[in-house]
Amino acid sequence: MELSDSWSAGSVAAVLPAGGSGERLGAARPKQFCALQGRPLVSHTARALERISWISDIIVVVSLEHIETMKSIIQKYGHKRITVVEGGVTRHRSIFNGLKIFAENKLSNCPLQKPEVVIIHDAVRPFIEEDILLKVVKAAKDHGAAGAIRPLVSTVVASSADGCLDHSLERARYRASEMPQAFLFDIIYQAYHQCNDYDLDYGTECLHLALKYCKTKAKLIEGSPDLWKVTYKRDLYAAESIIKDNLSQQVCVITDMKGDDVQVGFLLHETLKSHIKQVKRISVSLCKDDNYMQNIILGQCYNFICMHVKKSAFQETQQLVDILENANVSTLYPVVLISVHLNVSENASFSSEMEDLTRIKEFAREVKKKNILVYGLLIHYNKDDPQLQETVNSAATIISALIKDRNPELIGQLLVA
Amino acid sequence: MELSDSWSAGSVAAVLPAGGSGERLGAARPKQFCALQGRPLVSHTARALERISWISDIIVVVSLEHIETMKSIIQKYGHKRITVVEGGVTRHRSIFNGLKIFAENKLSNCPLQKPEVVIIHDAVRPFIEEDILLKVVKAAKDHGAAGAIRPLVSTVVASSADGCLDHSLERARYRASEMPQAFLFDIIYQAYHQCNDYDLDYGTECLHLALKYCKTKAKLIEGSPDLWKVTYKRDLYAAESIIKDNLSQQVCVITDMKGDDVQVGFLLHETLKSHIKQVKRISVSLCKDDNYMQNIILGQCYNFICMHVKKSAFQETQQLVDILENANVSTLYPVVLISVHLNVSENASFSSEMEDLTRIKEFAREVKKKNILVYGLLIHYNKDDPQLQETVNSAATIISALIKDRNPELIGQLLVA
Repeated sequence: MELSDSWSAGSVAAVLPAGGSGERLGAARPKQFCALQGRPLVSHTARALERISWISDIIVVVSLEHIETMKSIIQKYGHKRITVVEGGVTRHRSIFNGLKIFAENKLSNCPLQKPEVVIIHDAVRPFIEEDILLKVVKAAKDHGAAGAIRPLVSTVVASSADGCLDHSLERARYRASEMPQAFLFDIIYQAYHQCNDYDLDYGTECLHLALKYCKTKAKLIEGSPDLWKVTYKRDLYAAESIIKDNLSQQVCVITDMKGDDVQVGFLLHETLKSHIKQVKRISVSLCKDDNYMQNIILGQCYNFICMHVKKSAFQETQQLVDILENANVSTLYPVVLISVHLNVSENASFSSEMEDLTRIKEFAREVKKKNILVYGLLIHYNKDDPQLQETVNSAATIISALIKDRNPELIGQLLVA
Repeated sequence: MELSDSWSAGSVAAVLPAGGSGERLGAARPKQFCALQGRPLVSHTARALERISWISDIIVVVSLEHIETMKSIIQKYGHKRITVVEGGVTRHRSIFNGLKIFAENKLSNCPLQKPEVVIIHDAVRPFIEEDILLKVVKAAKDHGAAGAIRPLVSTVVASSADGCLDHSLERARYRASEMPQAFLFDIIYQAYHQCNDYDLDYGTECLHLALKYCKTKAKLIEGSPDLWKVTYKRDLYAAESIIKDNLSQQVCVITDMKGDDVQVGFLLHETLKSHIKQVKRISVSLCKDDNYMQNIILGQCYNFICMHVKKSAFQETQQLVDILENANVSTLYPVVLISVHLNVSENASFSSEMEDLTRIKEFAREVKKKNILVYGLLIHYNKDDPQLQETVNSAATIISALIKDRNPELIGQLLVA
């Protein structure tokens, strides 16, 4: 983080307008409060800003009716550095309200320090990376204003009064203005103070206000496709899939195998590598080591496989649940936990497996309350079985499917490889 | 279909440019050939046009290297009325090549009749409805040209040479030009003939060519959000979810229950209604009636539940597979088939269930080759069980999850309600 060294704390803040009604989504709930992997979209976006240490304060602006909802989101998901502010009837009025928190410090009893640069971002753009934030903040410092842009996906046309084509714009000459944007605080605040009611009611573009009222020509920064705005129902689908995809990149396999089982454990580990990007393998004893586990969790691992031979059953899985719970791993995202049972017996005792099934269902229901999704997987194998690799392939495929789907309705099922 | 009455067959054709390289997707394969529910995107779009009876010919324009791929897609998915044409190096050149097929009829030995109106659509916009096609075709007949538009999602800005904001467009005055578009054939063909190399190489907008070269002001028609173009990876995710969502709207429950089982069957049917929009219930005997089954299939039902008491096991499921196969139901989309076993015994025989499991896995693997996804579901219940409703709720939840996920990796599993 090159920026942070030269910048004093408190010099960058962010305003996150989250007051939209979500009309275009066609849903009853405004889109910023729609759940992605069980958590409201606005919380995902807030978290993306919050993890960046050089952003000192985040102002979330919501309509009056959603203030309590927003406060409970902050509490439930342990957000820090967020202040909730009541919005206005339009986007610009909401952003202006957010900015006032800093400028009218003395009037309110709010202890927020006026930042040198303020980031304006949308609550409905959750996939914001530090890289682009850094670029727009730096450019805002140099130019007074800066904003992310993207190439146009469609040609833009102007229509005449009779609803016919008047002219079309040459696509290469124009860009879509996206978020984040950043401004020297004094510039954007002054622009909002000077702008008229028409701007506040019908305008959509902060960069335009800075240009019109402060003669500040914003620097335009090419952003990545991730910056897109969740607008329609399909965007919620896309966001959900992207989050699931991100969550399924890593798995931690916890084993305590002995004898022949070691081979199967090793084989499964190797096979999983062709399904999942990063596969870690640790022993049960290491898993109980707090520091070791903390490192894995900090590495954003949300998938755990607990491998054990038949007899020990759920005892170790229960221990892992306790560890995950103590480490608050599942606060932000559901954690997938697959309890893999190896069964080596020649004539397997089916009835005891079905007993397991009953137990795992109850167990999974309990643990789901902690946002941990438990599934069972049975691997039958005989020593020196020529089909062992095939069985392991099947196990790896099922594990990978469970991790990628994260389906809360299938918890407690005992699948068979 | 108001239009079709007054129009003679052969008066409307469509050109579907599918030559893009898919750079923006960041994938090795151009996006029009990426699979959605196992079938290439271009096939979904072609199908959406093909089901409309008043479109007589569909020209799919692909780059030379993909001609064989496209031909095999046409064969595999049974497309009709599609002609494959080799594209040019740019979008406009590809569309022009597509149009030439009609105009240069006498030169080639192609029997395609020149249409009065030609629709131009994108291969990567699969969710096109008859309604909007009808509107643009009618408007093209009246005005010479017409195209679908959508409100802008982002403000459009112009940058100065130094990469700073020059000006921003007032969002309300502009629209995004989308597809479909339609033209009187002679107008668009003449426009392409007259336009220069710069237009052919750098232009993006057919409506612009009609305006510039034929003084034809296209009528702009407000379209629905469905018209969006699959451009980025997230769009593939969204499209996949929309298709899954569409496929999971209807389920057909086939039962042959007797005695107490009738009650459970009825209860499950009622409970499913709160999970799935349309739940049909028919008896096994009706299911064997070809006409009856054809009606269900024509109603776009891609989910079947085969309920039976323990003893009859897979025999009926096999029969259903045969019926579905004969009716070609699974050619375009994977069909979900859930084999529900009711088990009424007080002390259930677990080992026989595990035997079932082995059988269902093999069966499911076989049937998957026919694009039918088979899952097993066991409902244990005791007569007069006070928890019966809870068990049925659990069964309905699992059924609904299987239908919505359509996960090919979990086929052959025996889930327990």
